[in-house]
Amino acid sequence: MKYIDLNCDMGESFGAYKIGMDEEVIKLITSANIACGFHAGDPNVMDRTVAMAKAHGVGVGVHMGYPDLLGFGRRDMDISRDDLINYIIYQMGALDAFCRKHGVEIQHVKSHGSMGNMSFVNHTVADAVTEAVSIALPEAKLFVIAGTEVHRVAEEKGVSIVREVFADRAYTKEGTLVSRKVPGAVIKDPEVAAQNVLDMVLHGKVKTIDGETLAIEAESICVHGDTEGALAIVRRVKEKLEEAGVKIAPVGTWLGMNEPIS
Amino acid sequence: MKYIDLNCDMGESFGAYKIGMDEEVIKLITSANIACGFHAGDPNVMDRTVAMAKAHGVGVGVHMGYPDLLGFGRRDMDISRDDLINYIIYQMGALDAFCRKHGVEIQHVKSHGSMGNMSFVNHTVADAVTEAVSIALPEAKLFVIAGTEVHRVAEEKGVSIVREVFADRAYTKEGTLVSRKVPGAVIKDPEVAAQNVLDMVLHGKVKTIDGETLAIEAESICVHGDTEGALAIVRRVKEKLEEAGVKIAPVGTWLGMNEPIS
Amino acid sequence: MKYIDLNCDMGESFGAYKIGMDEEVIKLITSANIACGFHAGDPNVMDRTVAMAKAHGVGVGVHMGYPDLLGFGRRDMDISRDDLINYIIYQMGALDAFCRKHGVEIQHVKSHGSMGNMSFVNHTVADAVTEAVSIALPEAKLFVIAGTEVHRVAEEKGVSIVREVFADRAYTKEGTLVSRKVPGAVIKDPEVAAQNVLDMVLHGKVKTIDGETLAIEAESICVHGDTEGALAIVRRVKEKLEEAGVKIAPVGTWLGMNEPIS
Amino acid sequence: MKYIDLNCDMGESFGAYKIGMDEEVIKLITSANIACGFHAGDPNVMDRTVAMAKAHGVGVGVHMGYPDLLGFGRRDMDISRDDLINYIIYQMGALDAFCRKHGVEIQHVKSHGSMGNMSFVNHTVADAVTEAVSIALPEAKLFVIAGTEVHRVAEEKGVSIVREVFADRAYTKEGTLVSRKVPGAVIKDPEVAAQNVLDMVLHGKVKTIDGETLAIEAESICVHGDTEGALAIVRRVKEKLEEAGVKIAPVGTWLGMNEPIS
Repeated sequence: MKYIDLNCDMGESFGAYKIGMDEEVIKLITSANIACGFHAGDPNVMDRTVAMAKAHGVGVGVHMGYPDLLGFGRRDMDISRDDLINYIIYQMGALDAFCRKHGVEIQHVKSHGSMGNMSFVNHTVADAVTEAVSIALPEAKLFVIAGTEVHRVAEEKGVSIVREVFADRAYTKEGTLVSRKVPGAVIKDPEVAAQNVLDMVLHGKVKTIDGETLAIEAESICVHGDTEGALAIVRRVKEKLEEAGVKIAPVGTWLGMNEPIS
Repeated sequence: MKYIDLNCDMGESFGAYKIGMDEEVIKLITSANIACGFHAGDPNVMDRTVAMAKAHGVGVGVHMGYPDLLGFGRRDMDISRDDLINYIIYQMGALDAFCRKHGVEIQHVKSHGSMGNMSFVNHTVADAVTEAVSIALPEAKLFVIAGTEVHRVAEEKGVSIVREVFADRAYTKEGTLVSRKVPGAVIKDPEVAAQNVLDMVLHGKVKTIDGETLAIEAESICVHGDTEGALAIVRRVKEKLEEAGVKIAPVGTWLGMNEPIS
Repeated sequence: MKYIDLNCDMGESFGAYKIGMDEEVIKLITSANIACGFHAGDPNVMDRTVAMAKAHGVGVGVHMGYPDLLGFGRRDMDISRDDLINYIIYQMGALDAFCRKHGVEIQHVKSHGSMGNMSFVNHTVADAVTEAVSIALPEAKLFVIAGTEVHRVAEEKGVSIVREVFADRAYTKEGTLVSRKVPGAVIKDPEVAAQNVLDMVLHGKVKTIDGETLAIEAESICVHGDTEGALAIVRRVKEKLEEAGVKIAPVGTWLGMNEPIS
Repeated sequence: MKYIDLNCDMGESFGAYKIGMDEEVIKLITSANIACGFHAGDPNVMDRTVAMAKAHGVGVGVHMGYPDLLGFGRRDMDISRDDLINYIIYQMGALDAFCRKHGVEIQHVKSHGSMGNMSFVNHTVADAVTEAVSIALPEAKLFVIAGTEVHRVAEEKGVSIVREVFADRAYTKEGTLVSRKVPGAVIKDPEVAAQNVLDMVLHGKVKTIDGETLAIEAESICVHGDTEGALAIVRRVKEKLEEAGVKIAPVGTWLGMNEPIS
């Protein structure tokens, strides 16, 4: 059997402010990355989002960010390793309390925005993220991009990882995402996105922006749910995977059981 | 055997800002009410304070407050019941993550500042506080002032409670605290405070500000550690209790085992 | 000549969070109540909103709120008079700096949410609001609901006031707004709203929810711009006023020049 | 006549949190760098601090910082130029409102913490800081360290600058501050600090940590007031300058009138 997970950021609303079409996207995905009140989200939103994830059988994940609501966690902040570990543990605990309320377990952990980007290239951040997982959620799976610093450090520490790829982003032949500033970096055609995903899932490869073929493997596909266009992509990706007989399910339920790339 | 608990607010520092003489007071008390980042405290301070409590064998408690750092949680905020429950669960979870890191259990829960005051008289707040304990920390003991609304609701819901009295505050004959605006409301003489505490612990009574005798019982004595004067009171209270053979220990270790008032 | 002002809350977005259809509503109104970063708004939004108001010849107003982004300034907070004065002065100064950047003057001041509601009935809040205007923006006009505490105190202090009424809310025969919990409290039919406004502006009266006729006068009509339905009301109100020959202009340009109610 | 200015950070308290011995240091200095609520300070503290500065004839300055109370503005944040300009204008306006309340003018502007450090070496930050001064406080003087990027950009834009040196820090022969990690970086002996200051003020030179002599000129001496030791240094510096006949006064009252270094 061939399995795949679809993950999406959720619970990013804050007080009177609404971001995302969570009620729609929750029906399409299998893992929810839930903001924890630092870069986005608030206690009410967390409570609602965990309840919604449970109701739809979607895996719950900590989506921790920098303490920068004004910048939505997208700006780099020079936070020391020890501070960052504590900021992450705090967010993990806060989400975990709502999980216990609703009787679900935290499945995964994913760094948001600038913390995520930095964890790919900066050892201090990669170390802090993995250390926080080891300390506070040792059973959880950490989402990483394959080949990055956080991937390397996670393996070193024995932190269980999930490799993710992006449904709506073009890849360079080096395996990195094409910068958003480059035309064609963001894939808007659902059919193209769905074909790319299928190639990655079934055959372990993707056509790069330069037209070459890149070897790439992943257990989870990152999708977006903030616009109608994004939702159209998710719907087509899901459909195409199902047509091909791929089983779409929360990664925590099948990790390690996937059949090898044919 | 006669037991008593000494509790004090701790972990109220924030970033570069320091409040309290935590390193001193931790040696004298048996229960620490730890701020959780809403009215005071931050992830680093929480981490340090839990570690310190563990090192001194002090019981760890959630000291949750309103989301008002600027007002130190001392201003009433008209928060709905459901919002308040989620704000409290969030804070409980955050502290709990640091407790798990350090391998300790949360012993108790105490509302800070205006949330505490409102829980004594306002049903919505009393209900939210007790509901949050029921949901997220059903094993924890809730600190209350005897005879208040939160005491009543806690008993109704089967939430385990600890009755607290104050070492440095004068009582009215109705059993309420004398307003701070009244001369003599705050007791500054360590000897007077210590004698009051001893009377309450051993004989279940205290001399009121009017010179009458009031029946009063408690499992925990609330002390303060923010000034040298406050520390002097704690030291004398502790000494006098020990001289009288009272066993001072975290309330979670002996609740229900106390001998009756003689 | 008969003049009227149309005011609307604006600049309530925050960082990545967007609230309101400011680009649409700015074309229809004559006074913008601009959030100042406490309950909503941020420095970038303030800068953009002041620039937009200037470009459309719309009067700029301070829309100050409680320091409660999470509650959008809609929850009562028990803030002391002196604290509140300083919170308001701070917000006034912040907006004023952007006004100086864009070469416009602050025309008016309006309390947001719970601060506004409290200023109608609570003397401390009414006093703080008017005092802050006297201290920091003595030339600005304070928006009030006629007959409220803040109206009374403003007249006492010689603070220049603008009376406002609501385009989309039903009135009781006592001249107060019908509670939103009552059916019919919010007017959704643009034609009904526009007729009400015309009656108030031209004839100084409005039909109440009970079908009676109420005497009511105002210099500004409060409208909303957060939904398509709200915009439809503003468009119809504007159209109907123009058809009737009423001059719609920023209140600061004509206050005191209005002809008496016929 | 030989003039010098003594500047110190002030108004860094926040709500219940107190930092600094402002009441003591205000008697010794001539320019106060006042926090504006982003990295430290709050509206009440700003109000009090401006009043105190006025009462002591001390020049008032905007001490703006990054929006990071938790990090006290000491952590680098990757804020875009346009965002940073607006963040600074906002803080300038807020302080200015309190200055107008108390009838004083803003004399100067000084970047706090990481914003200050970055302005010395990073063009984007240097450009944003000087641009904000040009836009919102064109009459104010910008404090800089001579030879840094912000100094260069300020001169390019015609922003009036004040060069500052530090009373309690050792210098390298390149004219930069010795890193705090190096022994001897912080001067604790009031006599040594006072002699250094006198050398800089009267002779335009200072002995470096390596024992060499460095040419250095300044209009303002930065001092600290957060500890008794720091106050002792300020007192001795002031005394020694006065003994030498140097006139200590707010830089805004004499800038451009100083006699040349002898």
